[in-house]
This record gives sequence, C-alpha cells and structure tokens, in this order.
Amino acid sequence: MDFKKLIRTHLKDFEAYVPGEQPTEGGWVKLNTNENPYPPNPEILTDLKNAADDRLKLYPDPFARVLREKFLNLYLKDFDTVDHIDNIFVGNGTDDVLEVLFKLFIEPGDDVIFFDPSYGMYITLTELYGGNCVEIPLGENFSFPERNFEIKGKLLIINSPNNPTGQSFDNDSIQSACESFPGVVIVDETYADFSDTSVLPLLKQVDNLVVTRSFSKSFSLASLRLGLAIADKNLISLMNRVKLPYNVNYMAQVAGISCIEHKEEVFENNKNILSERKRLKEQLNKYDEISVLPSDSNFILVKFENESCAKLMFEKLKERRILIRYFSKPSLAQFVRISVGTEKQNDKFLSEFDKILDKNL
Amino acid sequence: MDFKKLIRTHLKDFEAYVPGEQPTEGGWVKLNTNENPYPPNPEILTDLKNAADDRLKLYPDPFARVLREKFLNLYLKDFDTVDHIDNIFVGNGTDDVLEVLFKLFIEPGDDVIFFDPSYGMYITLTELYGGNCVEIPLGENFSFPERNFEIKGKLLIINSPNNPTGQSFDNDSIQSACESFPGVVIVDETYADFSDTSVLPLLKQVDNLVVTRSFSKSFSLASLRLGLAIADKNLISLMNRVKLPYNVNYMAQVAGISCIEHKEEVFENNKNILSERKRLKEQLNKYDEISVLPSDSNFILVKFENESCAKLMFEKLKERRILIRYFSKPSLAQFVRISVGTEKQNDKFLSEFDKILDKNL
Repeated sequence: MDFKKLIRTHLKDFEAYVPGEQPTEGGWVKLNTNENPYPPNPEILTDLKNAADDRLKLYPDPFARVLREKFLNLYLKDFDTVDHIDNIFVGNGTDDVLEVLFKLFIEPGDDVIFFDPSYGMYITLTELYGGNCVEIPLGENFSFPERNFEIKGKLLIINSPNNPTGQSFDNDSIQSACESFPGVVIVDETYADFSDTSVLPLLKQVDNLVVTRSFSKSFSLASLRLGLAIADKNLISLMNRVKLPYNVNYMAQVAGISCIEHKEEVFENNKNILSERKRLKEQLNKYDEISVLPSDSNFILVKFENESCAKLMFEKLKERRILIRYFSKPSLAQFVRISVGTEKQNDKFLSEFDKILDKNL
Repeated sequence: MDFKKLIRTHLKDFEAYVPGEQPTEGGWVKLNTNENPYPPNPEILTDLKNAADDRLKLYPDPFARVLREKFLNLYLKDFDTVDHIDNIFVGNGTDDVLEVLFKLFIEPGDDVIFFDPSYGMYITLTELYGGNCVEIPLGENFSFPERNFEIKGKLLIINSPNNPTGQSFDNDSIQSACESFPGVVIVDETYADFSDTSVLPLLKQVDNLVVTRSFSKSFSLASLRLGLAIADKNLISLMNRVKLPYNVNYMAQVAGISCIEHKEEVFENNKNILSERKRLKEQLNKYDEISVLPSDSNFILVKFENESCAKLMFEKLKERRILIRYFSKPSLAQFVRISVGTEKQNDKFLSEFDKILDKNL
C-alpha cells in the first residue's frame, strides 16, 4: 500500500524534528542538549524507588491533582500570579503541552508567529498542524523585535529565556505583545528557573497568555517527560478536553511532586550552574575572535568572528568526544551553543577548545 | 478572551473522553477499568528501582531501541510474523499510538470505521480529528459484522478481543477486511495476551494492517503508559515522523524491557485471571435472569434480561464500594462489564452481587 497517498495533504513533505545527539556509550562530555549536568537530588530518587510498587498496575491520575496542588502551593506561591489549580495543566513534557495548544487552535492555513532564531520545535509543530510559520527576526543582539504584534495569527510563541540565544525578554515587551496580539500568546519558560525574571505575574494582567514550564532542565528530569502550563482557567479547561486521557505517567507525577517538595535544595545545587556559566563566559571572552552573549539560561551562545570556525569547532570537539550544538540555520552560522556542564566537564571542554583554537583556527 | 472563538471549527462541540473512575482513597474493589489485579512481578519493580539513578537527567531514547529489540527477540519471535525492529513503533500508551495514526491520516471529513459496541476512545479520537464516525453494528451475539468492507474510509479499527464484548474476531474475517478495505486497518490487540489468538501472523499476508499492543493490562503497567504498534516498515517510518520526539519516558522504557524479559513469569501469573474468569462466568450463569458472554479478555460482559437491572446493579455495588462498568449507550443498556479481579476481590463481588439480586431484583 502506498501510505503516502493516504496521509494528510499538509504532511506529505513534513520533516520530523531532529533531536540532539544522545551517545549510547559512556565517556562523552555532553553539552549539546541543555540537560542539567547534575542528577536529581537523592530524595527525589528515593521517592521514585519507593513509588515502584503495587500501585503501578493502576492507571495514573488523568489530571495529576496532587502534582498541581504541590506546584500551586509550593512553587507558584513565590510569584504574584494566578492562584488556583484550575489554572494549571500537566503534560508529557513541554512538547506535549505545546502540541495540545496546536491541536486546539491550529488548522491548515493558520498563522503561527515566533521569533528567529528560537526553539526549532516551533517550526516542527507548526508544520505538523499545517500552519504557516511566521518567523519574526529578533532585533539587534537578539533583542525583542521592534515590531508591533497587530498581526493576524492564532498563536504567538515567545521563548524566554530564548533558546538558543540565552536571554530573557522584558515583561513590558511581552505584555504589549499580549495586549495587541489577537490570539493566544505562549511564553515558553523552559529555562526560567535559571533566570531572575518570569512572566508569571503577567497572568494577572492579560488573559490570553499561557506560560509553559519544564521539569527537564532545572529539575534534572529530562528522562521523565514533565511539563506544565499556567493560564486562564477557561483555556486550561479546553486544553484538558483535547489531551489524551492518561497523558502523564505515574512515575513522572511522583518525580514532579518530589522535585517541588525539594526545590530549595535543587535550586541551591543549580547555583553551581550559574557560577560555571559565569566562568565559561569569562574564559571564552578572553579570545579576541570570540564573544559570548549574555545568558540567563543553563547554556551560552558563543559567536565566532570567522563564520567557518563555528562548524569546525563543533566537529573538532566531537572528534574529542565533546558534544556541543551547531545549527545549520543561516542566521546562526557564526554561533555554537554550549550547555553549562559540571566544573570538571567545563574544564575538559575549555582545555580542548583552547587546543583546537590554537591548532586550527 | 473568548477562546472558543479561536478553537478549530470541528472542536467547538467536542466532548472529552471520560476515563473510568479511579477512587483516591483505598478500600474499593475496583473492577471497572480492566486493570490487572496483580502487581508487576517483583523483578520488574526491582529493575525500576535500580533505574532511578543519575541517568534521569538525560533525555530518553526517542526511538526506544532497546525496548524494540527485546520485543522483537523475546516476544514477536513466538509468532510467525514480521521480524525487524523497523516494524515496531513505541508510544506513550496505546492511546498515543492510535493518536499518531489519526494525526497522520485523518483530516476533517474523513471517514473512520469501527464496530458498535467497541472501545469508546475510537469515537473520541475520530471527533478530535474532525473525522466522521462510521459505526458498524456487530452481528448476532456481538460477532464480526456480516458486511463487506468495500467502503470508503482511511482507517478501520477492529478491537480484538473487543472491549466491552470480550471476544476475539477470527483471522479470516480480519484478513478479508484488510484485503477489501482501501485504507489502513488497525487491529487493537490490547487484550490479546489473555487470548489464544492474534492477528500478528496476518502481517505477512497484508501490508495495510497495524497491530497495536498494550503493557497496561497483561503486564500490569497501566500507570506507566506504554503501547506498541507492529506494521509495515514504511508505515512505522511515517508514524515516527509525526510523533513527539520524546514521547515515551525512560522509566516506561525500562519497565517495558523488564516486562518482556520476565514475560514467562508474568503470563504464568495471568493464568489466575483466566481461571477466575471461568469461575466468575460459572457463578453468574447460575442466575436465571443473567447470562455471561464468552470472553478471552480479562473482563466479562454480563447481560441482564431485565434492562433496568444493569444500571441498578452498578449503583448498588458502588454503594458497597465495588466498582464495575455500566455504559449509558443504548446498545449496551442490558449489560455491565466486570474486570476479573483477584480471587478475594471476586469473592467479595460475587457475595455482594448475590445479596443485591436477592434484595432488589
């Protein structure tokens, strides 16, 4: 059977998202997919071990009630923001949260607006739902675009802090965008726990804002697929209608609850990432031909004056079993993205980086 | 913002799937959602406990390679069927596997064909993707419909053994349907491990067949969301293109691998379910006004001669903290579905059932 003849019109030439490399054997310094270099706290691992019991035979809570209550009472309470569990949606990773919003709103021909450069998954999801990608170039030094958002479109997606550029956008700009945009504005705060700012307080000012959060980065839980959305209750209710009934598995819910209960220790540990981020930046900025962009994420974007150097550095590091991220996109040809590792990983990276520069560039 | 104005046309009146009740407090005899009454084997729990380690900080394998290899070499090898890991797709529960097929093929206005009665999720998914539900009534005693499948449509879904009727359909009928149907035929074998038959060998005869499997029932893993599809490599490749990159979390992959490695012990344990199924059937068939349909699943469908009794029995049992499944659908008004529990649970159910019949009916 020629399955291609049967598939939906807009999917005939669809290209899948290509996930960052995950070597199966050990011995790699992995600074390519913005994972947290530290494991989950021991208490979280203990809670997971204890959860591996008879309960596993039963379906998980379809609405992750305990997790949402914990998130509300132990996490959201630190922000001046919405204050009811009906403002919270739980997904199988932030990808699932985003897909539910696409499933709800986007049909073939609809415009989806996002910035260039930004997280590649926005293009994939837009194409998957047959929407038109409207990419707005970021301003100078990857700042918020100087353009008003009185444009048609159902979804505007802002990644803040933005991947791969690293910086958060200011709340005033985001609020203006929400006020002028006629559709739903998603602010993807996957990296916000590494930053001092959040748009969560804006949820009290505008009702067309969805804030998404991830447990993959700041909580070291990429393996367990857990993401959240915080938004107007009416929107959350619609999202719950179109999600799969049991989208979030039990172990992910248990781990998420434990992460929130131990967030002080987790965030204390994450301070190492912030100090290492500072050190990486200082060390790399010492080279004349290189500059590091400001970052309030767990990664840095590094610019090479000579365009060919970015790709070469990526390749030479890979030969030495160090993975960083190189983007084939023209707007990023001069850049590589480096996830902040442990002190030891960063030492290794800096040492090899120096040798490669010395020898090749 | 009036979100309803923004949502996709076909979703404006969409009703979500209503999952079976999951009491949060203990003390219930839960025979309503076809979960396995036995917990996962101790070895599987041990493997899960051991997996709660540093690895959790990393993303899971997007293509669950090890799980697919194990399933091929330790499970599929017992069937005369396809024999390559590229014939296997892994999803976040069978719901995710099914949704990926809908996402690939169904756009508003497309026909989706399935039997009535069958698993309620097929209606939900069809409506979620804007398709037309074409429900073909089952034949006498819920047998395979005597109707040829030379009907237009992109998806035909056959649940075998069928939920809630309990019986498998014969492979000849399914093969004929595959040969005459112009689209993709999904045979949802969620309950096949409780049966003596499977359509897996048909995959060598027809190329438009997808067989789905679940770890929720026979492997006692409902909490972990793990489902598979086995099909033509070209179809699996298309499915992989439209799934979310990291759809299956690491703990689910670990548990699935362990389940397959310990399948002999698991299936040995499941023999208790088959003997209890036989006992439940014999006990209930003793009542004049009640008949139990043949089942090769882990549940039985019970018919009351007096239509009002089915709902009353459901309600009276619930007052006694015993949950069974009652369907509001007209074609099922005379029936209740009872998941086979442990010997102790079934004793309790039979005893209360008898008292209620004696008192009320």
